[in-house]
Amino acid sequence: MKSLSEEQKARLRHYLNDRKALIDQRLREYFPPIDGPAAVISEAMTYSLFAGGKRLRPILCMASASIVGGLEENVLPVACALECIHTYSLIHDDLPAMDDDDLRRGKPTNHKVFGDAIALLSGDGLLTEAFRLMAEAPSLECKSAAILLEVIRLVTRAAGCHGMIGGQVADILSEGKKVEFSVVEFIHRHKTAALIRASVLAGVLLGGGTGQQTDALGSYGEKIGLAFQISDDILDIEGDSITMGKAAGADDKKGKATYPALLGLEKAKSIQTKLVDDAVEHLGQFGERAEPLELIARYIIERKK
Amino acid sequence: MKSLSEEQKARLRHYLNDRKALIDQRLREYFPPIDGPAAVISEAMTYSLFAGGKRLRPILCMASASIVGGLEENVLPVACALECIHTYSLIHDDLPAMDDDDLRRGKPTNHKVFGDAIALLSGDGLLTEAFRLMAEAPSLECKSAAILLEVIRLVTRAAGCHGMIGGQVADILSEGKKVEFSVVEFIHRHKTAALIRASVLAGVLLGGGTGQQTDALGSYGEKIGLAFQISDDILDIEGDSITMGKAAGADDKKGKATYPALLGLEKAKSIQTKLVDDAVEHLGQFGERAEPLELIARYIIERKK
Repeated sequence: MKSLSEEQKARLRHYLNDRKALIDQRLREYFPPIDGPAAVISEAMTYSLFAGGKRLRPILCMASASIVGGLEENVLPVACALECIHTYSLIHDDLPAMDDDDLRRGKPTNHKVFGDAIALLSGDGLLTEAFRLMAEAPSLECKSAAILLEVIRLVTRAAGCHGMIGGQVADILSEGKKVEFSVVEFIHRHKTAALIRASVLAGVLLGGGTGQQTDALGSYGEKIGLAFQISDDILDIEGDSITMGKAAGADDKKGKATYPALLGLEKAKSIQTKLVDDAVEHLGQFGERAEPLELIARYIIERKK
Repeated sequence: MKSLSEEQKARLRHYLNDRKALIDQRLREYFPPIDGPAAVISEAMTYSLFAGGKRLRPILCMASASIVGGLEENVLPVACALECIHTYSLIHDDLPAMDDDDLRRGKPTNHKVFGDAIALLSGDGLLTEAFRLMAEAPSLECKSAAILLEVIRLVTRAAGCHGMIGGQVADILSEGKKVEFSVVEFIHRHKTAALIRASVLAGVLLGGGTGQQTDALGSYGEKIGLAFQISDDILDIEGDSITMGKAAGADDKKGKATYPALLGLEKAKSIQTKLVDDAVEHLGQFGERAEPLELIARYIIERKK
């Protein structure tokens, strides 16, 4: 696989930064401070929403809408909802009842700042508000109401107990145990790839993609989702705690079921490279318009945090 | 206020049991056992879903659809979703990070059986699946897709950080403190009344109610929601632990902000009676068809658990 050239890296940085700015601005609008006895919930939710996330899922949603001819602007409510779901999952994942992590992206985790109860509720809040954002996305025409419902169905399947939550359950249950490769694959496919794939497919649906485009981009999303989780696990071994903003080596300490732990670093890296190459191949039909999604796929391997 | 006659009690019992059976059957269909590494999540979700809930919210949704001329059968997916949201809120509420309760409806709480991590995730799962059920409710016509989106908006507002979650935040923050009456009212209005009101209004929307019917039934829902929370708090003082299936006196021990704690039992009871009388008055326009909703309102005061 080709590495990204300096020029490509600069183009990708520019692309990601532009969209991150749009997403951040929109998220600020969606989550203004709340007055009254429950004011702290908006502080807690926005604390984690603005704790330095890469906005990978919303950017994938926007890029996928665009590649099939839709307007990025139109998918922003759904894109932001996907970031809310991702953020809720991190807040709950970090709780003492789950992974018990103190640091995330270089900052104290939500419960370290707001306490366990408010952290739990702010995760619940972000998950609920995510569906509000999706349901409130402008739907003046009858057709888009039906499509929004389809997007909600897609996202709930990816985030629910047959998707992300199922993956987290298997992840927790596998800690400290010797598990089969099929279980590690189940965890990655559900815990991480499902929501990343759904982010891509939500963009395709909202952008008006054809069945063929949906198939190709669904496969792309699935493969980069798996590659993303593998790179997370590789970074946990090879990465630098300061750059990542969280303690390296945490997976090993907890006995997490990961590709590198089960197959070794080299094998994990070669699977990852193959996944990204396959993902890029699925973009063939889109020609030059595929560049953002191709660069994002390649960046997954090269990222340092 | 008139007490319920024995005949009315029998009619209400029959009415509630019939609907409870339909809801339970549908919930079983919606949550079949899951195979694979995450199988325990479906056990944990159904454990709490079938731990003896009264199904008040889904029954209110069905009764409200019916009173405006809709079919109860058609609102079952949304009705079941409301029960999932209620159940998730109880599971999270019982966690050590929140109220730390060991017993609910006479059974060990979810985390006592499945551990904190799985309990947390099963709450997340029920919340997510609730939106799946709503989005998957049959919507063959364009009109019903738009209405389902409106129902989702209504429910997210009632369950989110401007509704139930906001109420829970204020509830947690007020524990052991002397708070103003306005804060207690805020807690009850948000923590309990919001979702009960939304359950009524979801039925009205799906049943095709008019604006005038929506106004009247929205007020009905708000008032019985507040009355329901007051009866919960009165039961915590006067109730019998065995009948209720949870420890009486828990609110007092935790220093919870309740109507009886702030105003005394007699004043709390007179407010509750007034709320139920007002709620029933809002049913005036419906004539005889209002009987189920009227009986439910009166039952709120007389219930023992």
